[in-house]
Amino acid sequence: MTSLTGHSIIAGSPVAGRLAGSAGIEAATGDPLEPVYTYVDDEQLGEATQAAADAFDTYRATSPAERAAFLHRVADEIEADGEAIVARAVAESGLPLGRLAGELGRTTGQLRMFAEVVRVGDHLEARIDPALPDRTPLPRADIRQRQVPLGPVAVFGASNFPLAFSVAGGDTASALAAGCPVVVKAHNAHPGTSELVGAAVARAVAASGLPAGVFSLVFGSGTSVGQALVRDPRIKAVGFTGSRAGGLALVATAAQRREPIPVYAEMSSVNPVIVLPGSIAGGQAEALATAYVASLVLGSGQFCTNPGLTFVPSGSEGDAFVAAAARAVSQAAGQTMLTSGIAQAYDKGVAALRGTSAVTVEAEGIVGEAVNAPAPLLLSTTTAALRDDPAVSEEVFGAAGVIARWSDTEELADVLRGLEGQLTITVHATETDHDVARKLLPVLESKAGRILFNGWPTGVEVGHAMVHGGPFPATSDPRTTSVGSLAIYRFQRPVAYQDVPSDLLPEATRDDNPWGLTRRVDGRLRLAQD
Amino acid sequence: MTSLTGHSIIAGSPVAGRLAGSAGIEAATGDPLEPVYTYVDDEQLGEATQAAADAFDTYRATSPAERAAFLHRVADEIEADGEAIVARAVAESGLPLGRLAGELGRTTGQLRMFAEVVRVGDHLEARIDPALPDRTPLPRADIRQRQVPLGPVAVFGASNFPLAFSVAGGDTASALAAGCPVVVKAHNAHPGTSELVGAAVARAVAASGLPAGVFSLVFGSGTSVGQALVRDPRIKAVGFTGSRAGGLALVATAAQRREPIPVYAEMSSVNPVIVLPGSIAGGQAEALATAYVASLVLGSGQFCTNPGLTFVPSGSEGDAFVAAAARAVSQAAGQTMLTSGIAQAYDKGVAALRGTSAVTVEAEGIVGEAVNAPAPLLLSTTTAALRDDPAVSEEVFGAAGVIARWSDTEELADVLRGLEGQLTITVHATETDHDVARKLLPVLESKAGRILFNGWPTGVEVGHAMVHGGPFPATSDPRTTSVGSLAIYRFQRPVAYQDVPSDLLPEATRDDNPWGLTRRVDGRLRLAQD
Repeated sequence: MTSLTGHSIIAGSPVAGRLAGSAGIEAATGDPLEPVYTYVDDEQLGEATQAAADAFDTYRATSPAERAAFLHRVADEIEADGEAIVARAVAESGLPLGRLAGELGRTTGQLRMFAEVVRVGDHLEARIDPALPDRTPLPRADIRQRQVPLGPVAVFGASNFPLAFSVAGGDTASALAAGCPVVVKAHNAHPGTSELVGAAVARAVAASGLPAGVFSLVFGSGTSVGQALVRDPRIKAVGFTGSRAGGLALVATAAQRREPIPVYAEMSSVNPVIVLPGSIAGGQAEALATAYVASLVLGSGQFCTNPGLTFVPSGSEGDAFVAAAARAVSQAAGQTMLTSGIAQAYDKGVAALRGTSAVTVEAEGIVGEAVNAPAPLLLSTTTAALRDDPAVSEEVFGAAGVIARWSDTEELADVLRGLEGQLTITVHATETDHDVARKLLPVLESKAGRILFNGWPTGVEVGHAMVHGGPFPATSDPRTTSVGSLAIYRFQRPVAYQDVPSDLLPEATRDDNPWGLTRRVDGRLRLAQD
Repeated sequence: MTSLTGHSIIAGSPVAGRLAGSAGIEAATGDPLEPVYTYVDDEQLGEATQAAADAFDTYRATSPAERAAFLHRVADEIEADGEAIVARAVAESGLPLGRLAGELGRTTGQLRMFAEVVRVGDHLEARIDPALPDRTPLPRADIRQRQVPLGPVAVFGASNFPLAFSVAGGDTASALAAGCPVVVKAHNAHPGTSELVGAAVARAVAASGLPAGVFSLVFGSGTSVGQALVRDPRIKAVGFTGSRAGGLALVATAAQRREPIPVYAEMSSVNPVIVLPGSIAGGQAEALATAYVASLVLGSGQFCTNPGLTFVPSGSEGDAFVAAAARAVSQAAGQTMLTSGIAQAYDKGVAALRGTSAVTVEAEGIVGEAVNAPAPLLLSTTTAALRDDPAVSEEVFGAAGVIARWSDTEELADVLRGLEGQLTITVHATETDHDVARKLLPVLESKAGRILFNGWPTGVEVGHAMVHGGPFPATSDPRTTSVGSLAIYRFQRPVAYQDVPSDLLPEATRDDNPWGLTRRVDGRLRLAQD
């Protein structure tokens, strides 16, 4: 168990920042927590990125078995400090212990999933087009291909998942799995949690005999250290989860670099829910509305996938849904939000929504007893208003839900087409609704990274088929996901080897296939014999 | 056979541009060719992108068999007009008939390769994580994934491959294969060729019963229509092959969009060639030097992969290489370049290089008899000069080669580390050089998309393992390739389907696997039974 130092961890060593810093805040009380975290200056940041660049060639040369063992070790080290990490995360985030204990398991499970992905090696996408010396008019050379890591990756932790989307979260796990050193900019809402997890990662780096520069954790302000990190020419990709303003600022900074780099910013989404008539027919409206509100207020609504905009049919069953949802919201108490800043932003967002003439307040919950625990809120509007005033469908981070009443499926499809890109779109439907759902699906696919039926978006399974991504502004790059095994592809690029002598070929492309990989030979997959 | 109209082709119809335009130029004479191609205005361009957007849902819903048949039809239609296309391309580009006949075959072959890729369907990357209803503490939902096309793609043809990298070249073929409608901005250096090929594609669209908006071809200036195309919110990705200035201008325009989109710009590269001692030992220097010059002057040096910078060992065998290369260059006559602008840029680039004190002229070839046929040029420099003056290693598009003499492998590695990103790096080596080559390989991998041994980079095989890409400024996005089957991935994004009822699932993810796809189930590949 590590005691907290208030220092950054640069290439394995604790480094006191040269700039004044900030302390964590106990979410439930608003009181500062020991110690103060000093901020690194540009030179110190440069030491971290240089160490990452220096470590790159050694780290990327690790075998699948070595890299998998390292990722397992990271998970083990985090688990070894699990109790302290969860306790500190509870204090800093105000999230319940059970939720954070689960999130710790998600974090280590994610690392172990990527260990298995690396061990299997399918992500290397090895391809072999054998030579065709007798081909006419020209012979074909022997050409092989594998994926190589991009280089040092900058990761920005999110405040709402202080473990699974932070220091050793999905971005870090997938970047390390790909063979990229990582420099994490700690989120200042959970500095102690960040240090504890960062120390665990650094221990795993050392125990695995890897260069210390494989991992660094720096404290600093987002507007200075964060921007400097994205500008740093040694950084070759960026992973970010957070607000739209924060993500767009990083995208803009990256766009000013001489060398463009990929920025994977997961930003904002209202996660539309479409209630089709069958799902609330025959007296089911109340049960569905109750489940909806449970998803809406879960964790104070502080999920990227919180259902912020729900389309409910007009008519009596839709009325019953709204009435039941209003009852549930009015009985729901606010829970402590992650930070006072987030609570203030919620208040501001809610005030703006309430000030919109096209919106009606259906119910207001109860202000929580702890600090920063604003009341949940339920509003309603019409599809016409949604079409006319895009502000109505903008994300308010927190437990505020807007219900839009709809009556015509063509009109519904039209409004959906006018929405911005989303992480998720949910449909509630029974068999009687499938014809309508079938017509809507192409629209949903064009708008979201994940489409789900008869469930709620506030649970993102870590697996192989998951997509936590989507069209702008849900993310800055819809071609990928930040959750699930596909995320490793964000940090790779292909290299071709033409007529390279066999003793110089990388293992992944050798004839004897020493790593036992599944490979694409002449365009066809050949499964590994495992 | 289509007669030339001078019109754009917007969603299947010939459209006279509302702006003044330009005519093709006969490369060998500098004389204008009939007809004049009028330029579209912003409104006409908007008709093309709107038609593409309108066609998207229908086109992307085509089955693998339908889309493959369409791509075959495009190839067939181009072949049907092959003679006229090649003849016009010879006139407009000045490239030899044999070369262009070969390029036509490459173009149709590329389309047919993508037809096969689409038919097999591996690019859909179907994934299924089956439900685990009994999992504790929480059950797992049924989650499936496939790739969907991004939307309408803008393609910018290149001047140096008027067929294989132009209207129906690799960018168009891979975008159409992915399910994206395409709007091509014709290159004004070969407008007649562009119209003939564009008409062939449009015929294939019509014959396949597809919406006409699947393909449009517009004429205009790069700085107005080209930029407007990249700004158009209906465009979701850009493919470009051309100059660094042109590519960077498109990247900058895209960066100003509200919604960021991928820009795949293949730009500039000097394609370093590293001669290791063994390859010129024992009197082999002359043969290797002759082969080098053949690659250098091939097609007036107008290849993205032209070997512009060659590292030759110091010492007598290296001297012999330089001397033999100088003899070969001094006997080489200039060939007509693609346009007078390109010939002028070559002259300017060569003058700048000659003006650099660190560079020595080793040989000058013969000015060609036709117009725009400047003399090939061979220069030499030192690794120290390369390190001190980056201008020495900047691309001069054309048959100008720089030879850098090196003596120490550490120093060579250092200089290579200082180079910009490249499309290719070539090594000439025998077994005695393998220890040195092994040390250099990580550097080469970090700098180039393709590494080749004992050959020349000026031939880019269209296959499954090819990478025609690389770190900036070789391209604006190193994560992919513009040649070969991997290129289809540029125009896709993943979508996840969670608990979607089986009758609503896309074919690629259904339990009965109607398309016979290889799929990833619970993280493991399951091969199709074909």
